[in-house]
This record gives sequence, structure tokens and C-alpha cells, in this order.
Amino acid sequence: MSVTIDTIQVELGKRSYPIIIGEQLFSYPDYFLPYVLGNQIMIVSNETVAKLYLNPLLGAFTALQCDYVLLPDGEQYKTLSYWDTIIANLTTKKHHRSTTLVALGGGVIGDIAGFAAACYQRGVSFLQCPTTLLAQVDSAVGGKTGVNYGEGKNLVGAFYQPRCVISNLSTLDTLPEREYLSGLAEIIKSALITDAQFFNWLESHANSLRLRDKISLRYAIKRACQIKAGIIGQDEYENNKRMLLNLGHTFAHAIEEGLGYGTLLHGEAVAIGLVMAADLSVRMNLLNQQNSKRIFNLLKIVGLPVSLPSKLTEAKWFELMAMDKKVRDGKMRFVLLKQIGLADIIIDVPKQLLLETLQLNG
Amino acid sequence: MSVTIDTIQVELGKRSYPIIIGEQLFSYPDYFLPYVLGNQIMIVSNETVAKLYLNPLLGAFTALQCDYVLLPDGEQYKTLSYWDTIIANLTTKKHHRSTTLVALGGGVIGDIAGFAAACYQRGVSFLQCPTTLLAQVDSAVGGKTGVNYGEGKNLVGAFYQPRCVISNLSTLDTLPEREYLSGLAEIIKSALITDAQFFNWLESHANSLRLRDKISLRYAIKRACQIKAGIIGQDEYENNKRMLLNLGHTFAHAIEEGLGYGTLLHGEAVAIGLVMAADLSVRMNLLNQQNSKRIFNLLKIVGLPVSLPSKLTEAKWFELMAMDKKVRDGKMRFVLLKQIGLADIIIDVPKQLLLETLQLNG
Repeated sequence: MSVTIDTIQVELGKRSYPIIIGEQLFSYPDYFLPYVLGNQIMIVSNETVAKLYLNPLLGAFTALQCDYVLLPDGEQYKTLSYWDTIIANLTTKKHHRSTTLVALGGGVIGDIAGFAAACYQRGVSFLQCPTTLLAQVDSAVGGKTGVNYGEGKNLVGAFYQPRCVISNLSTLDTLPEREYLSGLAEIIKSALITDAQFFNWLESHANSLRLRDKISLRYAIKRACQIKAGIIGQDEYENNKRMLLNLGHTFAHAIEEGLGYGTLLHGEAVAIGLVMAADLSVRMNLLNQQNSKRIFNLLKIVGLPVSLPSKLTEAKWFELMAMDKKVRDGKMRFVLLKQIGLADIIIDVPKQLLLETLQLNG
Repeated sequence: MSVTIDTIQVELGKRSYPIIIGEQLFSYPDYFLPYVLGNQIMIVSNETVAKLYLNPLLGAFTALQCDYVLLPDGEQYKTLSYWDTIIANLTTKKHHRSTTLVALGGGVIGDIAGFAAACYQRGVSFLQCPTTLLAQVDSAVGGKTGVNYGEGKNLVGAFYQPRCVISNLSTLDTLPEREYLSGLAEIIKSALITDAQFFNWLESHANSLRLRDKISLRYAIKRACQIKAGIIGQDEYENNKRMLLNLGHTFAHAIEEGLGYGTLLHGEAVAIGLVMAADLSVRMNLLNQQNSKRIFNLLKIVGLPVSLPSKLTEAKWFELMAMDKKVRDGKMRFVLLKQIGLADIIIDVPKQLLLETLQLNG
């Protein structure tokens, strides 16, 4: 058997780590076993993913004390209470500081397991095995971990880097259509903020991506990971440049919370948020109308939603956006587009223009 | 008015910070206001300390949005539940990522507030205002934060450095006797692990320290902070050298948990733990009997307990010590003394010798 493995390095000094990308990766443990340092493993997964991939992954760790904890499947379970469930399992099974947590699942599992790894015994080793497209290109890379709290998405968490990311492309074969498209939204976002050529490529490969063509998909995943790794290498703790990765997310977080988690998937809310960010960029005279239209079209062609299924009131919008983590000293900040492939952080958005965007789209 | 301020720098690259030491420090905000970056402050304190020092400290921050949250006083409240209380206050009062948490109190307040700062919005600024001797020489320095969990002390937490430590010596005037002595135990520990000359100095100043002589005390605090800062600068995340600061603590943590929190203060348990570590060091032929006796005598002269008020069973000892964070791949490790001023990490302690130490002292 032969296998093609791609590796993208996230450069963070002592905390550098590889993103390992390939088909059937769980059958090639030699690629990731070197990143397990102790003799204990705790796999965190959800019931849906575990049915498909828990046994294959367990097979890679046969020489170790290997425990697992399964959470229910869904964003509404990304809470302190389920984080506590992971911690309780670690203590019950007597896991030591040298243990390794392994997140097997999508963004919810990666975020909550990563936050447990960050806190258990003040931090233990952590591997990401993202099984959704969104996690492979976005949430599993870069060390953002956390849980939702009250009305705030990811309001409690930590910056905590994994020791490696194991992106098994084969897990995407079983991904439901909406979840798959949700990942495409983050890929399109990564092109929009920094790489016009990649955006052009996405436009010309929109149909093959929609149909999950393996070659196109692998290239898109690699390119999105490279873009994200490059940004994180410059600004791990989101003091400036890393905020660009939040393009569309101020709107998206408010949409997810406002409609209730589960109504839209994260990537679907991001798609609508990207349309709104492009619209606001046009109103601010930063972006031209034609490019805004191209963004709208690409999102639509791949099959993503481009407008809200039900409206939010103006008061609700402002209430939800006020808790955005980009707020600094009471001032809202937006990531907006100057061109396709060039995003910037804008502090002084006139309220009237923001209202127009909200009224038109939200 | 004139004031003498000492500053000791903890060198951690981008995360370096000063320990600012002086009398009446809350009246000189110019020394620490530069470390507040945003326009919001959340003071975390307990009911006992707040009565004495909340208003003076609030006076230093008059130009800012200043909120506070008060917890009950005691180690038994260093729990996830009270940590959640801090987080809930931050969200209710709409604190942003640019906020600063200020811990005003002893080790419990510093640990739980620091862990809240580490997690809120994935990490916000944090100042330590230690008001106990133990916190000024030990727990407020070095970035260990956390809460107790089930039977495990500090089992959940983070390494998260403050932006500065504000050691107001005047707060020690109101410190109850047992709490004061508890701090002396950690000062003696710091001498034992790395500085024989400082230990000699402590022997010759035991009486003046017991009587809280200001000049002796200030020197002892500074020296203990220098020792701790030096070790942390070499090993922030406790991979090796920092473990030396745990001299006596494997026993002490088991003692605190075994007797029930509140029976002994942390520093009292550490004093007994130091006697036990010295005893085990002698049994291992690392330390001579005479030096073990000197350690016993110094702890006794300053007024610290040197033996357990009630015994623990052998089974209980092993159960409690098994969750020690120094355990690696199932092997217990002890910090032991080779000389006064020279500690080392010892992996292969014969069970029989450990039992003798436990039977004699515990």
C-alpha cells in the first residue's frame, strides 16, 4: 500500500507542530505516534463520529493505556458541564500530567477537548484528529479552544496548541452535505482575506469542489491550512493580524446565537456573515460592488446560504454583537475587505451604514 | 511622603513582569497603573480581605470602570463553582477582552482569579495583589493558577503569568499569626532548595522573623522572590528545575487533603512536608542527619508544626500521593535534599524507606 502524506508546519517556536494530511491516516500511526509522549491516551469524541472512527483510531494506539469519553453530538453541548465530564473521566481513570488527549471529531469536539487538555493538571499533551472539513481547514489549526458560556460563544477558553493535527481525508467521505459545505465557507474566507489567486482558483473549481472532487479538495484544504498557519505564526494570540481570520464572524456569531444554535451550522452562518461583511465593505467605499457580487456568487454556486432564513431585530443584533471578543474598550471593530484577498480591521464604522447592512441582509 | 520600592523582575521574554515590593503601595498607583491596559478592572477578593483593603485599592483605579466580586474566605471555596462566579460577574458586567482582573488576597484568591483571567475570552490581563506572606513569596509569583477538583489539589488550572505583582508589605500587619508563619515555611523552603547562605541567615534571624521585624522580613521576602523568579525564568512550565519548588509538597498536598482542608494551613502542611522530605533524604543517604535536624529546629523555632496532629493510614497516604502532578507514567517522584541549599528530583525511592518516613512522621 502506498500513501501520499502532505505536511504543513505551524511555526510557533517551541510550540511548532505539523498538520499531517492524507487518506486513511489512522492506518499509518508511524506518522503521528511520535507526538504521543507518555503511555496514556484519552480520546474525546461524540456518539456519531465514534461509530465510524473510534475503533480505527484505537487500533493506532494499542501499546498504550487507552480510554475514551463520548459526548452527545452538537454545538449545544459545547459547555462547561461537558468539559467537566472530560476532566472527571481523566481523574477517574487516573490520567497523569504525561497523558495525551486526542480530539476525534469536528470543531465542537476539538474546542472542548482542547480546553480540557489546556486545564487538566495545568496542561497536558493534545492531538487534533479533525473529521469535518471545517475542522480540518479551520478550527483544529491554531490553538483556539473553549466552550460557550451563557450567551457568549467561546467566551471561556484558552489559546492552547496541539502537538500535531492528523487530518484524515477519508473521514470526509461520510460527512453530510451541509457540514461539508460549511467547511467550504471557511476555505472561501481564507482566500478572501489574503489570497486573490486562490479565490480565482476557487471560482474556477466551484463545481468540482461542490462534488467533492478529491484532487481539488485536497489542494483547497492544503492552501487554507497554509494561509491559516502563516497568519498564526505571525500573531498567535490574536492581537492584530489573526483577527483577519474573523472576517464575517462578528455577524456569524450573532446569527448563530440569535437564531439559536442548531438552526444554522457555523459555516452556514459564516457564509451569510461574509455576504454581510462584503456588503458593509462596499458601503464603506472599501470594496467595489462587482467584487462583492463575485463573493455572493461563489458562496451561492457551491450551495451555501447567502441570506438569513428569518430576520433578527436591530436591538437583538446590537445586543449580540456587543459581546464580540474584538470589542476593545467598548468600541466595535469589524474585519472588512479592501479587495478580494486583502482584509483589514476597521474601527470607525458609522452606525448608519452598519444599520443598512443589517436591514438588507439580517 | 517618601517610600522605598524594590522591584524584582521575572524574566520570561515577552511575558516578563515585575514584582513590586513596598509599604503602603496602594497609595502609589503610579507604580502599577502602567500595567493596566484597558479601561475596565475586576477585583477578585474575599470577604475578610475586602473589609480591610478593598477601598484603598479601589482608590487607585478611580479613572476606570471598576467592579469587584467577593468570595467566601477559605481553601474549600477554591472550586470550579466559585471560578464560575467570577466568570459570571465578568459577563454580567460586560467586561471585554481588554479588561484586567486584579486578585486581592492570599493564595486561594490569586489561584482562582488567575485561572479566571486565563480562561475568560481565552485570556485577559491579570494583576496579583498578594496580601499574605505566603502569596507574596510564593503563590503570586510564577503564574501557577487553578482550582481544586474532587480529591486533587490544583488539578484543574493553567500556567498564566500576571502582568505585575503588587506586594504591599503593609497588608502583612493585619495577618493572623498562623497565616504569617505559613508564609515563613515557603521562605525556608526556597532557601533549602537553592541557597545555603540564605538558610544560615534565616537561622540567625529566626527570632526577629518570628516577631515580624520589618527589615528582616523585607529582606527575606525579596530573597525568596529572587530565588523563585530565577527558577521560573529557567523552567516556566515545570518540566524539570521548577519541580524543586515542590520540596515537601508531595507530602503537604496529601496532608492537606487527608486531614481535610482547613485543618492545617498550606504552609503548616509544607513545614511538616519539609521535615518528612528531609527525613526521607537522610534515609536515602543523600542528606546527613545533622542537617536534617537543623531544618527541623528552624521550623520549630519560628513556631511552625513539625509533625502531624493526627495520623493518616498507609493506604490513605498512597492513595493521596498517587494523584501528585509530578507522577509521570505511573512513577512517583520526590524532591529530596542532597545538602541544605541543594535539592534534586529523585525517581527511584524504595517503598520501604518511604514507608519508614510515613510511619515515623505521618
